[in-house]
Amino acid sequence: MNSKKKLKKRFEKSLHICVGLDSDINKIPKYLLDYENPVLEFNKSIINATKHSAAAYKLNFAFYEANGIKGWQTLEKTLKFIPDDILTIADAKRGDIGNTSEMYATSVFQHFGFDSVTLNPYMGFDSIKPFQKYSDKISFVLALTSNSSSLDFEKNILVDDSFLYQKVIDKANEWNEYDNMGIVFGATNLDELKSNIKNFKNLFVLLPGVGAQGGDLNEIVKSFSTADNNNFLINISRSLIYAGLGKNFVKATEQKLQEYNSVVFSNLNS
Amino acid sequence: MNSKKKLKKRFEKSLHICVGLDSDINKIPKYLLDYENPVLEFNKSIINATKHSAAAYKLNFAFYEANGIKGWQTLEKTLKFIPDDILTIADAKRGDIGNTSEMYATSVFQHFGFDSVTLNPYMGFDSIKPFQKYSDKISFVLALTSNSSSLDFEKNILVDDSFLYQKVIDKANEWNEYDNMGIVFGATNLDELKSNIKNFKNLFVLLPGVGAQGGDLNEIVKSFSTADNNNFLINISRSLIYAGLGKNFVKATEQKLQEYNSVVFSNLNS
Repeated sequence: MNSKKKLKKRFEKSLHICVGLDSDINKIPKYLLDYENPVLEFNKSIINATKHSAAAYKLNFAFYEANGIKGWQTLEKTLKFIPDDILTIADAKRGDIGNTSEMYATSVFQHFGFDSVTLNPYMGFDSIKPFQKYSDKISFVLALTSNSSSLDFEKNILVDDSFLYQKVIDKANEWNEYDNMGIVFGATNLDELKSNIKNFKNLFVLLPGVGAQGGDLNEIVKSFSTADNNNFLINISRSLIYAGLGKNFVKATEQKLQEYNSVVFSNLNS
Repeated sequence: MNSKKKLKKRFEKSLHICVGLDSDINKIPKYLLDYENPVLEFNKSIINATKHSAAAYKLNFAFYEANGIKGWQTLEKTLKFIPDDILTIADAKRGDIGNTSEMYATSVFQHFGFDSVTLNPYMGFDSIKPFQKYSDKISFVLALTSNSSSLDFEKNILVDDSFLYQKVIDKANEWNEYDNMGIVFGATNLDELKSNIKNFKNLFVLLPGVGAQGGDLNEIVKSFSTADNNNFLINISRSLIYAGLGKNFVKATEQKLQEYNSVVFSNLNS
């Protein structure tokens, strides 16, 4: 199934929560350490519990790369547990000169078979194009991130009445000839979300920062609902996958996701 | 040996060329395809031929990631062939929120054991700090890259008489409390190099873009020599490692490196 179709089908059911598999061996329930590959076992359980009520899965490459080859094996194997009708996001924040980005795109889309990727826009369009030209995949470009150092460049540099992150949003729209571009917009920036949402146009919007980072789910969804924009994914990692720490952790995650989904649902259908 | 010491020792011998191991199975000599791991065999031969006359090795992660787990194995094994007295650069262009950058730093510095890394500054200091705090490692932050789309943001956005890439250079200096920060500055930007070199201060400078991308080695070295700055590494990948395509490819690379070294040497010692 085409990536965009996967998303649309979930959005039609008011499913907008993306499960962030930032799986860390030091944080998963201790009893899983008896398994041969504890992180894989953890991911499999989380996926089984959430696959019908999540909107997407985001795999944060750093958490796998930290374990080298074993981590990459876990990444590959985790993907096999994710059903084909739900979007997968390679949260890899890649970006390099053209011939190098080609190689990264081969890795993410062809080798692993991800449906979408997060990219860093600093180097400009020729670093994005090798991903964007996969017209059936979605490329999410970093616009305004959820961390406090977004003040260093993203929302500090102001030129012609636009901040750097707003220039990136304009460019992402310009690059959107295949209707497959997205942006990453940190949920911790509620004011900026409200004032920029009209410029998101057809871009898919991935919002990290709800949960451990403090973004307000209710307000975020309300903003999209008010703007009549249904094209958004809210990523939650830590406060969802580590909702429970004992043998019943899966139940805790399932319940937490239901709570989050209710907040989304009540805002979109009020 | 400390990363900075490794570099200084090479610089003292007027060695400034970094060998870029952008090793691509489709471009290496055909006879190597008979080996179990052709790219590893290729890297081993290139390293053996250049280890006394190169200043550093840069491994472009994309070229390994494109082959998934096998590629990561090649990356790991290649590092074992590089002697301990020469700097290794993880050209990975990483950068993410703090807890994620921590994981990337674990991967690059602890798991692989690289001496240095390339980083993308877009997300600001908290995405850099987890690398920078490894005070015996070097963190090269992208400033002005060698690709033409550097015009999209890096050298297009002008604020308070500074372009974005100049703001990044200022920040890199500000972040340099451990004297272990570097910048990436594309060798294709000769005019900008000349006009900014005084602001590089104690930053290590990694310059890609000589060779296939068209940067002028002679002019680059002359600029550093004139500015009395000895803190630079010029990366050459394609035109060095693919200098020969037959059974004697190693000789061709060896000879090419000698030619490049002569250009450097004659400029620094004239």
